[in-house]
Amino acid sequence: MSEFAQLNPAERILMGPGPSTVPARILQAIGAPTLGHLDPQYIEIMDETCAMLRRVFQTENALTFPVSATGMAGMEAIASNLVERGDEVIVCVNGVFGGRMKDIMERCGATAHPVEAEWGEIVTDEAVAEAVRAHPKAKLVTIVHAETSTGAHQPLEKISKIVHEAGMLLVVDAVTSLAGHPVKVDEWEIDAIFSGTQKCLSCPPGLSPVSFSERALAVIDGRESKPQSWYFDVSMLRAYYSGSGKRAYHHTAPINMIYALREALAIVLEEGLENRFERHRQMHHRLREGLKMLGISYIPKNSLHTLNCVSIPEGVDDAQVRSRLLSEYSIEIGAGLGPFAGKAWRIGLMGHAATQRNVDLFLAALEEVMK
Amino acid sequence: MSEFAQLNPAERILMGPGPSTVPARILQAIGAPTLGHLDPQYIEIMDETCAMLRRVFQTENALTFPVSATGMAGMEAIASNLVERGDEVIVCVNGVFGGRMKDIMERCGATAHPVEAEWGEIVTDEAVAEAVRAHPKAKLVTIVHAETSTGAHQPLEKISKIVHEAGMLLVVDAVTSLAGHPVKVDEWEIDAIFSGTQKCLSCPPGLSPVSFSERALAVIDGRESKPQSWYFDVSMLRAYYSGSGKRAYHHTAPINMIYALREALAIVLEEGLENRFERHRQMHHRLREGLKMLGISYIPKNSLHTLNCVSIPEGVDDAQVRSRLLSEYSIEIGAGLGPFAGKAWRIGLMGHAATQRNVDLFLAALEEVMK
Repeated sequence: MSEFAQLNPAERILMGPGPSTVPARILQAIGAPTLGHLDPQYIEIMDETCAMLRRVFQTENALTFPVSATGMAGMEAIASNLVERGDEVIVCVNGVFGGRMKDIMERCGATAHPVEAEWGEIVTDEAVAEAVRAHPKAKLVTIVHAETSTGAHQPLEKISKIVHEAGMLLVVDAVTSLAGHPVKVDEWEIDAIFSGTQKCLSCPPGLSPVSFSERALAVIDGRESKPQSWYFDVSMLRAYYSGSGKRAYHHTAPINMIYALREALAIVLEEGLENRFERHRQMHHRLREGLKMLGISYIPKNSLHTLNCVSIPEGVDDAQVRSRLLSEYSIEIGAGLGPFAGKAWRIGLMGHAATQRNVDLFLAALEEVMK
Repeated sequence: MSEFAQLNPAERILMGPGPSTVPARILQAIGAPTLGHLDPQYIEIMDETCAMLRRVFQTENALTFPVSATGMAGMEAIASNLVERGDEVIVCVNGVFGGRMKDIMERCGATAHPVEAEWGEIVTDEAVAEAVRAHPKAKLVTIVHAETSTGAHQPLEKISKIVHEAGMLLVVDAVTSLAGHPVKVDEWEIDAIFSGTQKCLSCPPGLSPVSFSERALAVIDGRESKPQSWYFDVSMLRAYYSGSGKRAYHHTAPINMIYALREALAIVLEEGLENRFERHRQMHHRLREGLKMLGISYIPKNSLHTLNCVSIPEGVDDAQVRSRLLSEYSIEIGAGLGPFAGKAWRIGLMGHAATQRNVDLFLAALEEVMK
């Protein structure tokens, strides 16, 4: 007999800001036998995974791969590869994740010029245009496509044009949008983008899919100093993820997480990207209608479908509602962050969790626990 | 029908430098339902995992947790938290991983003074004593307990005394020793140590267990600058992994990998550390005897039990032997790295793979494919 209890986690319905509910197919795939990280079978699985990632990112970028760590590591990988000490960068900040990007850029030795918008608002084209005029030496502009802390859905196409006309690179945080909203890396000319596996891909957390354009790779190739991070150094990772022929060992890849991601991507591509976006749109509207009936309104004007940030009605006990949803229904939703703490709920409709069954149950459950 | 083939990795016997063969119990645990990273159930599982890690590291260190990335990230996490730009450090180098530590330290802005030993040799007490005399301002000394590239097993007790008498911190790479050889963090007064899950813990790759002493935390608390890495910043991670009461969100932990690690640690503690070390010792000697009968000798004088680095006999085709072992027996062993490429094999006997069944099969298989 073991002194340790058997692992027995509850079967939650995950409707918070992530992770989202993981389908059984992916939970089976993650438990497949572990291969060595240089095994020809594994290299094939990894190459397939990267090819599928390109389709989901809608890009031909050769360097498209999952960073071997959770979503925030993708942000750090991009910053540490593109930025050198003394660089100037422009960082759009309208929530927690823009603020985090600024912090990471500064830790990389950059001077970060913020373009700020209110929490829940999007960053305007005009504000970005003004920033690139004011800071013509900036190397790049970062922006959050899907701000998980506020639910704001940021349009990118015009901003991309403004950034490129100024000769800068465009860096995008797509953690909560990839596979839930269109993310067109090539069409929108995004130079570096990162996401997470635990949102609209409905894969467990543990990997951060990234993609770098040829323009971004040229900047990396032209660096004068080594990236400050060894673990995230793309110049070495390239030889493993997109080398032809023999793959150079860099670090031991998280094999079983890659199995899970491959299965998650297969599910996305089997459904079809457009069908998947449409499903997220429909479920968002179904939820929105239901919340309206309960007198609950959205905070951002331009809301994501995948993350629904709503005001907690007057007189309702935030913590008690979330705790009762968890204990009585095994449903997880998210609390507000920063200035929204105690004032907002964040309701995720991501990937496998964005179903009519979940929306209708959640609305019934919320009505019950708010009584 | 899906356009994608079903995932069907071979059931390898993993006797290379890692990953090692993962037991079925762990492959089941990793596929348990995904919880949210702030779910009270998950926090309990995480706390149990950290408590079990302390037992395996033989430490009372409060800050003992798995970094959310693979083994090399533990090295980077330690370097980026302990070192500030302009610091001096002493780095013992007797193989790939010592060299990698030097590179990472330099990327953190440190001046790294190497203490070199031949590949396959250990670093002598005298060489460390000389280095601390020559560089009295050095903040810390790093050393590899188990050099995976050469199989050398480094004694640490005397070196620890020398380092502490000089007022420096001791940083240890225990990637290939933890749970296979004694690693006594408190008794040996190690200040910061990292390992990987995919070696003697026989868990899939994806996490890097680390532990920091109170002395190391005091150094971190006294920093003048933020660590250059946000993802690995221990001052924030502490609030999640060892906070009392409410846990602060930093990043989304790799939930299912933690399930796997918890199961792996339970298996280790059920076997008992001393029994486990003894099993690794016995299997090493069984392998050594068998290899001797085949005319194959060890490269390091002071060999690890867990990683057996041996000379490829004259006239034997390195690549063909490894390829036939894989295709005919589904057994993976490792190639030589750096100066040992083409000259050495690295045979892992780690965790679940260190069994009489595997040793005897491997010896029979090797004899067959060398014919």
